[in-house]
Amino acid sequence: MTDFPTGDLSRLSLNTATTKALTLAEAVDVATRAGLGAVGLWRDRVAEAGLEEAARIVKASGLRVSSLCRGGFLTAAEAAGQAEALADNKAAIIEAATLGTSELVMVVGGLPAASGPSGPPTPGGDRDLVAARQRVADRVGELAPFSGEHGVRLVLEPLHPIFAADRAVLSTLEQCLDLAAAFPAEQVGVVVDTYHVWWDPKLRELIHRAASEGRLAGYQVCDWNLPLAADSLLSRGFMGDGYVDFPTITTWVAEAGYTGDVEVEIFNQEIWDAPGDQTVATMAERYLELVQPYL
Amino acid sequence: MTDFPTGDLSRLSLNTATTKALTLAEAVDVATRAGLGAVGLWRDRVAEAGLEEAARIVKASGLRVSSLCRGGFLTAAEAAGQAEALADNKAAIIEAATLGTSELVMVVGGLPAASGPSGPPTPGGDRDLVAARQRVADRVGELAPFSGEHGVRLVLEPLHPIFAADRAVLSTLEQCLDLAAAFPAEQVGVVVDTYHVWWDPKLRELIHRAASEGRLAGYQVCDWNLPLAADSLLSRGFMGDGYVDFPTITTWVAEAGYTGDVEVEIFNQEIWDAPGDQTVATMAERYLELVQPYL
Repeated sequence: MTDFPTGDLSRLSLNTATTKALTLAEAVDVATRAGLGAVGLWRDRVAEAGLEEAARIVKASGLRVSSLCRGGFLTAAEAAGQAEALADNKAAIIEAATLGTSELVMVVGGLPAASGPSGPPTPGGDRDLVAARQRVADRVGELAPFSGEHGVRLVLEPLHPIFAADRAVLSTLEQCLDLAAAFPAEQVGVVVDTYHVWWDPKLRELIHRAASEGRLAGYQVCDWNLPLAADSLLSRGFMGDGYVDFPTITTWVAEAGYTGDVEVEIFNQEIWDAPGDQTVATMAERYLELVQPYL
Repeated sequence: MTDFPTGDLSRLSLNTATTKALTLAEAVDVATRAGLGAVGLWRDRVAEAGLEEAARIVKASGLRVSSLCRGGFLTAAEAAGQAEALADNKAAIIEAATLGTSELVMVVGGLPAASGPSGPPTPGGDRDLVAARQRVADRVGELAPFSGEHGVRLVLEPLHPIFAADRAVLSTLEQCLDLAAAFPAEQVGVVVDTYHVWWDPKLRELIHRAASEGRLAGYQVCDWNLPLAADSLLSRGFMGDGYVDFPTITTWVAEAGYTGDVEVEIFNQEIWDAPGDQTVATMAERYLELVQPYL
Protein backbone atom coordinates (compact mmCIF):
# COMPACT_ATOMS: atom_id res chain seq x y z
CA MET A 1 0.00 0.00 0.00
CA THR A 2 1.28 3.44 -0.92
CA ASP A 3 0.86 6.11 1.74
CA PHE A 4 -0.53 9.35 0.40
CA PRO A 5 0.80 12.55 1.97
CA THR A 6 -1.41 14.52 4.30
CA GLY A 7 -2.12 18.19 3.65
CA ASP A 8 -4.54 20.37 1.75
CA LEU A 9 -5.02 18.63 -1.57
CA SER A 10 -8.47 20.12 -2.16
CA ARG A 11 -7.35 22.07 -5.24
CA LEU A 12 -5.10 19.38 -6.70
CA SER A 13 -6.38 17.66 -9.82
CA LEU A 14 -5.06 14.47 -11.41
CA ASN A 15 -5.00 14.75 -15.17
CA THR A 16 -5.54 11.26 -16.56
CA ALA A 17 -2.58 11.71 -18.93
CA THR A 18 -0.31 11.50 -15.88
CA THR A 19 -1.50 7.98 -15.07
CA LYS A 20 -1.75 6.80 -18.61
CA ALA A 21 -2.04 3.09 -17.77
CA LEU A 22 -5.14 3.59 -15.59
CA THR A 23 -8.72 3.45 -16.82
CA LEU A 24 -10.92 6.41 -16.02
CA ALA A 25 -12.49 4.49 -13.12
CA GLU A 26 -9.04 3.59 -11.74
CA ALA A 27 -7.80 7.19 -12.04
CA VAL A 28 -10.91 8.51 -10.28
CA ASP A 29 -10.43 5.88 -7.57
CA VAL A 30 -6.81 6.79 -6.81
CA ALA A 31 -7.59 10.52 -6.88
CA THR A 32 -10.40 9.95 -4.40
CA ARG A 33 -8.34 7.77 -2.06
CA ALA A 34 -5.49 10.32 -2.12
CA GLY A 35 -7.86 13.09 -1.11
CA LEU A 36 -7.63 15.17 -4.29
CA GLY A 37 -10.37 17.60 -5.20
CA ALA A 38 -10.60 17.02 -8.94
CA VAL A 39 -9.62 15.14 -12.04
CA GLY A 40 -8.80 16.38 -15.52
CA LEU A 41 -10.03 13.96 -18.17
CA TRP A 42 -8.69 13.01 -21.57
CA ARG A 43 -11.17 12.07 -24.22
CA ASP A 44 -9.56 8.69 -24.94
CA ARG A 45 -10.22 7.51 -21.37
CA VAL A 46 -13.76 8.89 -21.53
CA ALA A 47 -14.45 7.12 -24.81
CA GLU A 48 -13.08 3.87 -23.44
CA ALA A 49 -15.51 4.01 -20.49
CA GLY A 50 -18.37 5.37 -22.58
CA LEU A 51 -19.48 8.97 -22.13
CA GLU A 52 -22.53 8.33 -19.92
CA GLU A 53 -20.67 5.82 -17.75
CA ALA A 54 -17.70 8.21 -17.43
CA ALA A 55 -20.06 10.99 -16.34
CA ARG A 56 -21.68 8.63 -13.81
CA ILE A 57 -18.28 7.57 -12.39
CA VAL A 58 -17.00 11.09 -11.82
CA LYS A 59 -20.33 12.31 -10.45
CA ALA A 60 -20.48 9.42 -7.99
CA SER A 61 -16.92 10.18 -6.83
CA GLY A 62 -17.77 13.71 -5.79
CA LEU A 63 -14.65 14.99 -7.60
CA ARG A 64 -14.77 18.08 -9.77
CA VAL A 65 -13.79 17.73 -13.42
CA SER A 66 -11.26 20.53 -13.83
CA SER A 67 -11.05 20.18 -17.62
CA LEU A 68 -11.56 17.95 -20.60
CA CYS A 69 -8.54 17.45 -22.86
CA ARG A 70 -8.64 18.08 -25.69
CA GLY A 71 -10.28 19.79 -28.57
CA GLY A 72 -8.32 21.49 -31.30
CA PHE A 73 -6.46 20.49 -34.46
CA LEU A 74 -7.85 23.47 -36.29
CA THR A 75 -5.13 24.22 -38.82
CA ALA A 76 -6.34 22.19 -41.82
CA ALA A 77 -6.25 24.21 -45.04
CA GLU A 78 -8.72 22.01 -46.94
CA ALA A 79 -12.49 22.14 -46.56
CA ALA A 80 -12.78 18.46 -45.67
CA GLY A 81 -10.22 18.76 -42.86
CA GLN A 82 -11.93 21.88 -41.56
CA ALA A 83 -15.37 20.23 -41.54
CA GLU A 84 -13.93 17.23 -39.73
CA ALA A 85 -12.33 19.48 -37.12
CA LEU A 86 -15.58 21.36 -36.51
CA ALA A 87 -17.54 18.12 -36.10
CA ASP A 88 -14.97 16.65 -33.73
CA ASN A 89 -14.79 19.80 -31.62
CA LYS A 90 -18.57 20.02 -31.38
CA ALA A 91 -18.57 16.44 -30.10
CA ALA A 92 -15.89 17.40 -27.55
CA ILE A 93 -17.97 20.38 -26.39
CA ILE A 94 -20.95 18.11 -25.79
CA GLU A 95 -18.74 15.63 -23.95
CA ALA A 96 -17.42 18.39 -21.69
CA ALA A 97 -20.94 19.53 -20.85
CA THR A 98 -22.03 15.95 -20.16
CA LEU A 99 -19.04 15.35 -17.87
CA GLY A 100 -19.80 18.49 -15.90
CA THR A 101 -16.82 20.64 -16.82
CA SER A 102 -16.98 24.07 -18.41
CA GLU A 103 -13.38 23.97 -19.63
CA LEU A 104 -12.38 22.29 -22.91
CA VAL A 105 -8.61 22.52 -23.44
CA MET A 106 -7.69 23.23 -27.06
CA VAL A 107 -4.42 22.03 -28.60
CA VAL A 108 -4.78 23.76 -31.93
CA GLY A 109 -2.44 21.75 -34.15
CA GLY A 110 0.75 22.46 -36.06
CA LEU A 111 1.58 23.33 -39.63
CA PRO A 112 -0.67 21.20 -41.85
CA ALA A 113 2.29 19.55 -43.51
CA ALA A 114 4.04 18.87 -40.23
CA SER A 115 1.48 16.90 -38.33
CA GLY A 116 -1.96 15.46 -38.06
CA PRO A 117 -3.83 14.48 -34.93
CA SER A 118 -2.26 11.05 -35.15
CA GLY A 119 0.48 11.14 -37.76
CA PRO A 120 4.19 11.77 -37.36
CA PRO A 121 5.80 14.95 -38.65
CA THR A 122 6.53 14.99 -42.34
CA PRO A 123 8.96 17.39 -43.99
CA GLY A 124 8.12 19.87 -46.68
CA GLY A 125 4.78 21.25 -47.68
CA ASP A 126 2.97 24.22 -46.23
CA ARG A 127 5.19 26.38 -44.02
CA ASP A 128 2.90 29.41 -43.88
CA LEU A 129 2.67 29.88 -40.12
CA VAL A 130 0.83 33.19 -40.39
CA ALA A 131 -1.95 31.61 -42.44
CA ALA A 132 -2.17 28.57 -40.16
CA ARG A 133 -2.64 30.88 -37.20
CA GLN A 134 -5.36 32.79 -39.01
CA ARG A 135 -7.21 29.54 -39.70
CA VAL A 136 -7.12 28.76 -35.98
CA ALA A 137 -8.76 32.11 -35.26
CA ASP A 138 -11.36 31.45 -37.97
CA ARG A 139 -12.25 28.01 -36.57
CA VAL A 140 -12.43 29.33 -33.01
CA GLY A 141 -14.85 31.95 -34.29
CA GLU A 142 -17.04 29.24 -35.78
CA LEU A 143 -16.98 27.13 -32.61
CA ALA A 144 -17.27 29.77 -29.90
CA PRO A 145 -21.06 30.40 -30.11
CA PHE A 146 -21.82 26.66 -30.11
CA SER A 147 -19.51 26.27 -27.14
CA GLY A 148 -21.22 29.09 -25.28
CA GLU A 149 -24.66 27.57 -25.90
CA HIS A 150 -23.48 24.43 -24.11
CA GLY A 151 -21.95 26.27 -21.16
CA VAL A 152 -18.47 25.21 -22.24
CA ARG A 153 -15.44 27.43 -22.78
CA LEU A 154 -12.79 26.86 -25.44
CA VAL A 155 -9.57 27.03 -23.44
CA LEU A 156 -6.67 27.98 -25.71
CA GLU A 157 -3.42 26.38 -24.64
CA PRO A 158 -0.17 27.98 -25.75
CA LEU A 159 2.30 25.18 -26.36
CA HIS A 160 6.05 25.59 -25.93
CA PRO A 161 7.61 26.90 -29.15
CA ILE A 162 9.39 23.57 -29.47
CA PHE A 163 6.00 22.31 -30.71
CA ALA A 164 5.17 25.20 -33.07
CA ALA A 165 5.80 23.13 -36.21
CA ASP A 166 4.07 19.90 -35.29
CA ARG A 167 1.68 20.36 -32.37
CA ALA A 168 0.33 23.87 -31.87
CA VAL A 169 0.80 27.13 -33.73
CA LEU A 170 -0.33 28.99 -30.60
CA SER A 171 3.00 29.57 -28.87
CA THR A 172 2.53 32.28 -26.23
CA LEU A 173 -0.05 33.30 -23.68
CA GLU A 174 -0.10 36.76 -25.25
CA GLN A 175 -0.99 35.31 -28.64
CA CYS A 176 -3.82 33.28 -27.09
CA LEU A 177 -5.18 36.30 -25.23
CA ASP A 178 -5.02 38.44 -28.37
CA LEU A 179 -6.98 35.78 -30.25
CA ALA A 180 -9.46 35.35 -27.40
CA ALA A 181 -10.10 39.09 -27.19
CA ALA A 182 -12.60 38.92 -30.05
CA PHE A 183 -14.89 36.63 -28.04
CA PRO A 184 -16.76 36.75 -24.73
CA ALA A 185 -14.70 35.49 -21.78
CA GLU A 186 -17.23 32.75 -21.08
CA GLN A 187 -16.69 31.36 -24.58
CA VAL A 188 -12.89 31.54 -24.98
CA GLY A 189 -10.30 31.31 -22.20
CA VAL A 190 -6.67 30.33 -21.73
CA VAL A 191 -4.74 27.87 -19.60
CA VAL A 192 -1.32 28.35 -18.03
CA ASP A 193 0.75 25.16 -18.21
CA THR A 194 4.12 25.76 -16.58
CA TYR A 195 5.86 23.35 -18.97
CA HIS A 196 4.84 25.44 -21.94
CA VAL A 197 5.20 28.99 -20.63
CA TRP A 198 7.77 28.98 -17.80
CA TRP A 199 10.38 30.66 -20.03
CA ASP A 200 8.16 33.58 -21.12
CA PRO A 201 9.73 36.93 -20.13
CA LYS A 202 6.25 38.46 -19.88
CA LEU A 203 4.67 35.61 -17.92
CA ARG A 204 3.74 37.54 -14.79
CA GLU A 205 2.16 40.36 -16.78
CA LEU A 206 0.27 37.92 -19.01
CA ILE A 207 -1.10 35.85 -16.11
CA HIS A 208 -2.44 39.05 -14.59
CA ARG A 209 -3.92 40.07 -17.94
CA ALA A 210 -5.60 36.68 -18.37
CA ALA A 211 -7.15 36.87 -14.93
CA SER A 212 -8.24 40.50 -15.27
CA GLU A 213 -9.95 39.65 -18.54
CA GLY A 214 -11.76 36.75 -16.87
CA ARG A 215 -10.07 34.18 -19.10
CA LEU A 216 -7.72 32.32 -16.74
CA ALA A 217 -9.45 28.97 -17.03
CA GLY A 218 -6.83 26.63 -15.64
CA TYR A 219 -3.41 26.18 -14.08
CA GLN A 220 -1.41 23.07 -14.96
CA VAL A 221 1.89 22.22 -13.36
CA CYS A 222 4.75 19.97 -14.35
CA ASP A 223 8.47 20.51 -14.78
CA TRP A 224 10.82 21.13 -17.70
CA ASN A 225 13.35 18.30 -17.53
CA LEU A 226 16.76 18.19 -19.17
CA PRO A 227 18.18 16.54 -21.11
CA LEU A 228 15.15 16.37 -23.36
CA ALA A 229 13.67 12.91 -23.87
CA ALA A 230 14.17 11.33 -27.29
CA ASP A 231 10.49 12.10 -27.85
CA SER A 232 10.45 15.70 -26.62
CA LEU A 233 6.74 15.42 -25.87
CA LEU A 234 7.68 13.12 -22.98
CA SER A 235 10.25 15.44 -21.37
CA ARG A 236 7.97 16.50 -18.54
CA GLY A 237 8.72 15.78 -14.93
CA PHE A 238 7.34 15.98 -11.44
CA MET A 239 7.53 19.46 -9.96
CA GLY A 240 11.04 19.87 -8.58
CA ASP A 241 12.77 17.50 -11.01
CA GLY A 242 13.59 20.18 -13.58
CA TYR A 243 14.08 23.92 -13.94
CA VAL A 244 10.68 25.55 -13.40
CA ASP A 245 10.36 28.03 -10.52
CA PHE A 246 7.01 26.82 -9.12
CA PRO A 247 6.86 29.08 -6.04
CA THR A 248 7.29 32.19 -8.18
CA ILE A 249 4.86 31.26 -10.95
CA THR A 250 2.29 29.97 -8.46
CA THR A 251 2.53 33.22 -6.55
CA TRP A 252 1.81 35.13 -9.76
CA VAL A 253 -1.22 32.92 -10.45
CA ALA A 254 -2.52 33.40 -6.91
CA GLU A 255 -1.90 37.16 -6.88
CA ALA A 256 -3.87 37.40 -10.12
CA GLY A 257 -6.85 35.97 -8.26
CA TYR A 258 -7.01 32.43 -9.60
CA THR A 259 -9.02 30.20 -7.26
CA GLY A 260 -9.53 27.13 -9.43
CA ASP A 261 -7.96 23.69 -9.52
CA VAL A 262 -4.31 22.91 -10.16
CA GLU A 263 -3.92 20.08 -12.62
CA VAL A 264 -0.88 17.89 -12.88
CA GLU A 265 -0.43 16.66 -16.44
CA ILE A 266 2.84 14.84 -17.02
CA PHE A 267 3.82 12.94 -20.15
CA ASN A 268 6.78 10.81 -19.12
CA GLN A 269 7.41 7.17 -19.96
CA GLU A 270 9.08 6.38 -16.65
CA ILE A 271 6.14 7.83 -14.72
CA TRP A 272 3.68 5.99 -16.95
CA ASP A 273 5.49 2.74 -16.17
CA ALA A 274 5.18 3.27 -12.38
CA PRO A 275 2.16 2.16 -10.30
CA GLY A 276 -0.63 4.78 -10.31
CA ASP A 277 -0.72 5.08 -6.53
CA GLN A 278 2.99 5.85 -6.40
CA THR A 279 2.64 8.50 -9.11
CA VAL A 280 -0.22 10.23 -7.33
CA ALA A 281 1.63 10.09 -4.00
CA THR A 282 4.72 11.72 -5.52
CA MET A 283 2.77 14.42 -7.34
CA ALA A 284 0.85 15.21 -4.14
CA GLU A 285 4.10 15.47 -2.14
CA ARG A 286 5.65 17.82 -4.67
CA TYR A 287 2.45 19.85 -4.87
CA LEU A 288 2.42 20.30 -1.09
CA GLU A 289 6.08 21.35 -1.13
CA LEU A 290 6.32 23.59 -4.20
CA VAL A 291 2.82 24.74 -5.19
CA GLN A 292 0.16 24.63 -2.47
CA PRO A 293 1.96 26.94 0.00
CA TYR A 294 2.00 29.68 -2.65
CA LEU A 295 -1.62 29.45 -3.74
CA MET B 1 35.89 19.51 -57.34
CA THR B 2 32.61 20.83 -56.06
CA ASP B 3 30.85 23.29 -58.31
CA PHE B 4 29.59 26.35 -56.50
CA PRO B 5 26.29 27.81 -57.71
CA THR B 6 26.30 31.04 -59.66
CA GLY B 7 24.21 33.97 -58.50
CA ASP B 8 24.44 36.97 -56.22
CA LEU B 9 26.20 35.69 -53.12
CA SER B 10 27.58 39.09 -52.17
CA ARG B 11 25.58 39.27 -48.93
CA LEU B 12 26.01 35.62 -47.95
CA SER B 13 28.27 34.94 -44.98
CA LEU B 14 29.72 31.60 -43.90
CA ASN B 15 29.68 31.26 -40.15
CA THR B 16 32.62 29.08 -39.19
CA ALA B 17 30.37 26.97 -36.94
CA THR B 18 28.77 25.59 -40.11
CA THR B 19 32.06 24.12 -41.30
CA LYS B 20 33.29 23.02 -37.91
CA ALA B 21 36.07 20.79 -39.22
CA LEU B 22 37.76 23.62 -41.13
CA THR B 23 40.42 25.91 -39.73
CA LEU B 24 39.81 29.63 -40.03
CA ALA B 25 42.11 29.79 -43.07
CA GLU B 26 40.27 26.91 -44.73
CA ALA B 27 36.86 28.46 -44.05
CA VAL B 28 38.01 31.80 -45.46
CA ASP B 29 39.39 29.98 -48.50
CA VAL B 30 36.19 28.13 -49.34
CA ALA B 31 34.08 31.26 -48.74
CA THR B 32 36.32 33.18 -51.13
CA ARG B 33 36.30 30.51 -53.83
CA ALA B 34 32.50 30.23 -53.60
CA GLY B 35 32.12 33.97 -54.12
CA LEU B 36 30.65 34.82 -50.73
CA GLY B 37 30.86 38.33 -49.36
CA ALA B 38 31.64 37.62 -45.73
CA VAL B 39 32.46 35.22 -42.94
CA GLY B 40 31.18 35.04 -39.38
CA LEU B 41 33.91 33.92 -37.01
CA TRP B 42 33.83 31.87 -33.85
CA ARG B 43 36.37 32.65 -31.19
CA ASP B 44 37.70 29.09 -30.99
CA ARG B 45 38.82 29.21 -34.64
CA VAL B 46 40.32 32.66 -34.12
CA ALA B 47 42.23 31.51 -31.05
CA GLU B 48 43.51 28.47 -32.90
CA ALA B 49 44.95 30.67 -35.66
CA GLY B 50 46.09 33.38 -33.27
CA LEU B 51 44.28 36.72 -33.20
CA GLU B 52 46.75 38.74 -35.30
CA GLU B 53 47.13 35.97 -37.86
CA ALA B 54 43.35 35.53 -38.04
CA ALA B 55 42.93 39.26 -38.64
CA ARG B 56 45.62 39.11 -41.35
CA ILE B 57 43.94 36.15 -43.08
CA VAL B 58 40.50 37.74 -43.28
CA LYS B 59 41.86 41.13 -44.28
CA ALA B 60 43.90 39.56 -47.09
CA SER B 61 40.82 37.70 -48.33
CA GLY B 62 38.82 40.86 -48.87
CA LEU B 63 35.84 39.29 -47.08
CA ARG B 64 33.84 41.23 -44.54
CA VAL B 65 33.59 39.83 -41.02
CA SER B 66 29.85 39.88 -40.39
CA SER B 67 30.16 39.01 -36.71
CA LEU B 68 32.26 37.45 -34.01
CA CYS B 69 30.62 34.66 -31.99
CA ARG B 70 30.43 34.83 -29.11
CA GLY B 71 30.48 36.78 -25.94
CA GLY B 72 28.04 36.21 -23.16
CA PHE B 73 27.61 33.81 -20.24
CA LEU B 74 26.55 36.63 -17.97
CA THR B 75 24.25 34.88 -15.51
CA ALA B 76 26.68 33.96 -12.74
CA ALA B 77 25.35 34.87 -9.31
CA GLU B 78 28.76 34.88 -7.57
CA ALA B 79 31.28 37.73 -7.71
CA ALA B 80 34.06 35.49 -9.05
CA GLY B 81 31.91 34.24 -11.91
CA GLN B 82 30.82 37.76 -12.73
CA ALA B 83 34.39 39.08 -12.76
CA GLU B 84 35.44 36.22 -15.00
CA ALA B 85 32.57 36.96 -17.40
CA LEU B 86 33.47 40.64 -17.59
CA ALA B 87 37.12 39.86 -18.30
CA ASP B 88 36.26 37.32 -20.97
CA ASN B 89 33.79 39.63 -22.67
CA LYS B 90 36.26 42.51 -22.68
CA ALA B 91 38.72 40.20 -24.40
CA ALA B 92 36.04 39.28 -26.95
CA ILE B 93 35.31 42.97 -27.61
CA ILE B 94 38.98 43.60 -28.33
CA GLU B 95 39.11 40.55 -30.59
CA ALA B 96 36.10 41.80 -32.55
CA ALA B 97 37.70 45.20 -33.05
CA THR B 98 40.98 43.60 -34.11
CA LEU B 99 39.20 41.34 -36.61
CA GLY B 100 37.39 44.30 -38.14
CA THR B 101 33.82 43.55 -37.12
CA SER B 102 31.56 45.82 -35.11
CA GLU B 103 29.18 43.03 -34.09
CA LEU B 104 29.87 40.74 -31.12
CA VAL B 105 27.09 38.15 -30.79
CA MET B 106 26.14 37.52 -27.17
CA VAL B 107 24.78 34.17 -25.96
CA VAL B 108 23.98 35.19 -22.43
CA GLY B 109 23.89 31.85 -20.62
CA GLY B 110 21.26 29.83 -18.80
CA LEU B 111 20.26 29.38 -15.19
CA PRO B 112 23.47 29.23 -13.17
CA ALA B 113 22.67 25.75 -11.92
CA ALA B 114 21.77 24.49 -15.35
CA SER B 115 24.87 25.17 -17.35
CA GLY B 116 28.26 26.63 -17.71
CA PRO B 117 30.01 27.65 -20.90
CA SER B 118 31.29 24.11 -21.24
CA GLY B 119 29.48 21.92 -18.74
CA PRO B 120 26.40 19.78 -19.20
CA PRO B 121 23.11 20.71 -17.55
CA THR B 122 22.80 19.72 -13.94
CA PRO B 123 19.53 19.47 -12.06
CA GLY B 124 18.56 21.43 -8.98
CA GLY B 125 19.93 24.65 -7.64
CA ASP B 126 19.00 28.17 -8.63
CA ARG B 127 15.78 28.35 -10.66
CA ASP B 128 15.22 32.09 -10.29
CA LEU B 129 14.85 33.05 -13.93
CA VAL B 130 13.78 36.62 -13.15
CA ALA B 131 16.96 37.24 -11.16
CA ALA B 132 19.17 35.60 -13.81
CA ARG B 133 17.69 37.89 -16.43
CA GLN B 134 18.31 40.93 -14.23
CA ARG B 135 21.96 39.92 -13.87
CA VAL B 136 22.26 39.80 -17.66
CA ALA B 137 20.97 43.36 -17.84
CA ASP B 138 23.41 44.41 -15.11
CA ARG B 139 26.40 42.84 -16.87
CA VAL B 140 25.40 44.34 -20.23
CA GLY B 141 25.28 47.70 -18.49
CA GLU B 142 28.83 47.21 -17.25
CA LEU B 143 30.13 46.11 -20.66
CA ALA B 144 28.31 48.50 -22.98
CA PRO B 145 30.50 51.60 -22.50
CA PHE B 146 33.71 49.57 -22.92
CA SER B 147 32.24 48.02 -26.04
CA GLY B 148 31.30 51.42 -27.42
CA GLU B 149 34.81 52.74 -26.80
CA HIS B 150 36.16 49.97 -29.04
CA GLY B 151 33.61 50.52 -31.82
CA VAL B 152 32.00 47.18 -31.09
CA ARG B 153 28.33 46.48 -30.43
CA LEU B 154 27.03 43.86 -28.01
CA VAL B 155 24.55 41.94 -30.15
CA LEU B 156 21.97 40.24 -27.94
CA GLU B 157 20.79 36.95 -29.37
CA PRO B 158 17.44 35.60 -28.24
CA LEU B 159 17.75 31.84 -28.14
CA HIS B 160 14.82 29.49 -28.71
CA PRO B 161 12.95 28.88 -25.44
CA ILE B 162 14.10 25.26 -25.64
CA PHE B 163 17.44 26.67 -24.39
CA ALA B 164 16.08 28.95 -21.64
CA ALA B 165 17.28 26.67 -18.84
CA ASP B 166 20.74 25.79 -20.05
CA ARG B 167 21.94 28.20 -22.76
CA ALA B 168 20.34 31.63 -22.74
CA VAL B 169 17.78 33.30 -20.52
CA LEU B 170 17.09 35.80 -23.31
CA SER B 171 14.26 34.05 -25.14
CA THR B 172 12.51 36.57 -27.38
CA LEU B 173 13.44 39.44 -29.62
CA GLU B 174 11.09 41.66 -27.64
CA GLN B 175 12.93 40.87 -24.42
CA CYS B 176 16.27 41.69 -26.05
CA LEU B 177 14.95 44.97 -27.43
CA ASP B 178 13.50 45.93 -24.06
CA LEU B 179 16.87 45.24 -22.45
CA ALA B 180 18.74 47.09 -25.18
CA ALA B 181 16.51 50.15 -24.87
CA ALA B 182 18.53 51.44 -21.92
CA PHE B 183 21.66 51.75 -24.08
CA PRO B 184 22.71 53.59 -27.25
CA ALA B 185 22.00 51.65 -30.44
CA GLU B 186 25.69 51.66 -31.35
CA GLN B 187 26.48 49.85 -28.09
CA VAL B 188 23.73 47.22 -27.86
CA GLY B 189 21.94 45.58 -30.79
CA VAL B 190 20.08 42.36 -31.58
CA VAL B 191 20.39 39.56 -34.11
CA VAL B 192 17.57 37.65 -35.78
CA ASP B 193 18.41 33.97 -36.13
CA THR B 194 15.53 32.17 -37.84
CA TYR B 195 16.17 28.97 -35.89
CA HIS B 196 15.55 30.75 -32.61
CA VAL B 197 12.68 33.10 -33.47
CA TRP B 198 10.76 31.63 -36.42
CA TRP B 199 7.86 30.63 -34.14
CA ASP B 200 7.37 34.09 -32.57
CA PRO B 201 3.84 35.41 -33.23
CA LYS B 202 5.16 38.98 -33.09
CA LEU B 203 8.21 38.39 -35.30
CA ARG B 204 7.30 40.79 -38.10
CA GLU B 205 6.50 43.59 -35.69
CA LEU B 206 9.69 42.98 -33.69
CA ILE B 207 11.96 42.89 -36.75
CA HIS B 208 10.54 46.25 -37.77
CA ARG B 209 11.01 47.58 -34.25
CA ALA B 210 14.62 46.39 -34.16
CA ALA B 211 15.37 48.08 -37.46
CA SER B 212 13.58 51.30 -36.62
CA GLU B 213 15.54 51.53 -33.38
CA GLY B 214 18.78 51.03 -35.31
CA ARG B 215 19.57 47.77 -33.52
CA LEU B 216 19.13 45.11 -36.23
CA ALA B 217 22.76 44.00 -36.26
CA GLY B 218 22.50 40.69 -38.07
CA TYR B 219 20.35 38.15 -39.86
CA GLN B 220 21.23 34.48 -39.48
CA VAL B 221 19.45 31.74 -41.37
CA CYS B 222 19.10 28.01 -40.82
CA ASP B 223 16.15 25.68 -40.53
CA TRP B 224 14.22 24.07 -37.67
CA ASN B 225 14.47 20.35 -38.33
CA LEU B 226 12.25 17.63 -36.91
CA PRO B 227 12.53 15.21 -35.27
CA LEU B 228 14.90 16.99 -32.90
CA ALA B 229 18.42 15.58 -32.76
CA ALA B 230 19.38 13.72 -29.59
CA ASP B 231 21.42 16.80 -28.74
CA SER B 232 18.81 19.45 -29.50
CA LEU B 233 21.56 21.99 -30.10
CA LEU B 234 22.39 20.11 -33.30
CA SER B 235 18.86 20.10 -34.75
CA ARG B 236 19.56 22.79 -37.27
CA GLY B 237 19.34 22.23 -40.98
CA PHE B 238 20.00 23.79 -44.35
CA MET B 239 17.30 26.25 -45.37
CA GLY B 240 14.49 24.18 -46.88
CA ASP B 241 15.09 21.02 -44.86
CA GLY B 242 12.74 21.95 -42.03
CA TYR B 243 9.76 24.13 -41.23
CA VAL B 244 10.94 27.74 -41.38
CA ASP B 245 9.23 30.04 -43.90
CA PHE B 246 12.35 31.79 -45.26
CA PRO B 247 10.70 33.83 -48.01
CA THR B 248 8.28 35.40 -45.52
CA ILE B 249 10.79 36.13 -42.77
CA THR B 250 13.38 37.40 -45.25
CA THR B 251 10.77 39.71 -46.75
CA TRP B 252 10.09 41.14 -43.29
CA VAL B 253 13.83 41.68 -42.72
CA ALA B 254 14.20 43.39 -46.10
CA GLU B 255 11.08 45.55 -45.67
CA ALA B 256 12.46 46.69 -42.34
CA GLY B 257 15.45 48.07 -44.21
CA TYR B 258 18.18 45.59 -43.32
CA THR B 259 21.04 45.79 -45.80
CA GLY B 260 23.69 43.75 -44.00
CA ASP B 261 25.07 40.26 -44.44
CA VAL B 262 23.11 37.05 -44.10
CA GLU B 263 24.99 34.50 -42.05
CA VAL B 264 24.43 30.79 -42.24
CA GLU B 265 25.18 29.18 -38.90
CA ILE B 266 24.24 25.50 -38.73
CA PHE B 267 25.06 23.10 -35.92
CA ASN B 268 24.46 19.65 -37.38
CA GLN B 269 26.67 16.59 -37.02
CA GLU B 270 25.89 15.26 -40.50
CA ILE B 271 26.80 18.61 -42.07
CA TRP B 272 29.95 18.81 -39.97
CA ASP B 273 30.96 15.38 -41.26
CA ALA B 274 30.60 16.45 -44.92
CA PRO B 275 33.39 18.12 -46.96
CA GLY B 276 33.47 21.89 -46.46
CA ASP B 277 33.13 22.66 -50.17
CA GLN B 278 29.97 20.56 -50.38
CA THR B 279 28.49 22.29 -47.34
CA VAL B 280 29.15 25.75 -48.74
CA ALA B 281 27.77 24.75 -52.15
CA THR B 282 24.53 23.49 -50.60
CA MET B 283 24.07 26.50 -48.36
CA ALA B 284 24.68 28.80 -51.33
CA GLU B 285 22.11 26.93 -53.43
CA ARG B 286 19.49 27.12 -50.72
CA TYR B 287 20.29 30.78 -50.10
CA LEU B 288 19.80 31.60 -53.78
CA GLU B 289 16.50 29.69 -53.80
CA LEU B 290 14.90 30.69 -50.49
CA VAL B 291 16.57 33.84 -49.18
CA GLN B 292 18.35 36.00 -51.74
CA PRO B 293 15.31 36.65 -54.00
CA TYR B 294 13.47 38.15 -51.02
CA LEU B 295 16.23 40.43 -49.78
